Amino acid sequence: MTAPPEPRWLTEAEQDAWYAWRRMFPLVNAGIARDLTRDSGLSEADYDVLSVLGSADGHRTRISTLAELLRWSRSRASHQLSRMEQRGILRREEVEGDGRGAEVVLTPDGVSAITEAAPLHVESVRRHLVDVLTPEQLRTLAEVGEALREGLGAPPRA
Amino acid sequence: MTAPPEPRWLTEAEQDAWYAWRRMFPLVNAGIARDLTRDSGLSEADYDVLSVLGSADGHRTRISTLAELLRWSRSRASHQLSRMEQRGILRREEVEGDGRGAEVVLTPDGVSAITEAAPLHVESVRRHLVDVLTPEQLRTLAEVGEALREGLGAPPRA
Repeated sequence: MTAPPEPRWLTEAEQDAWYAWRRMFPLVNAGIARDLTRDSGLSEADYDVLSVLGSADGHRTRISTLAELLRWSRSRASHQLSRMEQRGILRREEVEGDGRGAEVVLTPDGVSAITEAAPLHVESVRRHLVDVLTPEQLRTLAEVGEALREGLGAPPRA
Repeated sequence: MTAPPEPRWLTEAEQDAWYAWRRMFPLVNAGIARDLTRDSGLSEADYDVLSVLGSADGHRTRISTLAELLRWSRSRASHQLSRMEQRGILRREEVEGDGRGAEVVLTPDGVSAITEAAPLHVESVRRHLVDVLTPEQLRTLAEVGEALREGLGAPPRA
């Protein structure tokens, strides 16, 4: 019987990175979410949907495509879209004789919502993240994102 | 009347960093949380509490200090500690004639829980984050954490 291997505890530099990791996301994301609600009355999930539809051809996409892009379950997407439909921001439409499932399309109110929210949101993202960091730090963040996706077996971004 | 200023849309490099930011945190944290539940039957909040108490003098700390360290509201800390107390992992104790509020202390079962969970958790953190990145990338993450804290007016880490 051999002794179990000594755990590979984190070095000080590794701990610094891990603690930074744990703290920075909630800090930044809470600030951006707060701004979004205050500036535009939207949740992050609302904004994500509006943003995908706002840049889609005809402001329209398959629900399955939307769910995949946002990495949401069908059920999460369905609940979120119901709420937005009730608020008149978008409409769900069955696509007849197609069999590939329903589509979702922005209403004129939805187009206004994303058109008004986007400039404020980008300022918020700059204020809380992008403008605080150097171009070199931003480049490393993008690299780290790729490395983590590959390390975890996720496909690289197209 | 002047036209509103043109929004400062993100450059491609800035977008890469922002999308990486949005995606990498849920990806890594879901993996680590899954491991923690599977390996040790603990939630992340359980682990955070055990980890603070495990390294405190006498495995004991003020509830207010714990809440501050974890950036939790008093109410969140109170609910979490109640659940852990019911499971026999820790005990809350009033400190008489002190006026600075209750303390919380690990039970022997709590000490076992963190002693057994820690080596598995550190392996998980390595597998999902630390060992996937280069020392240079880890250094930049720590720097980015500091820059964001300072940018948002949070005090630097002691």
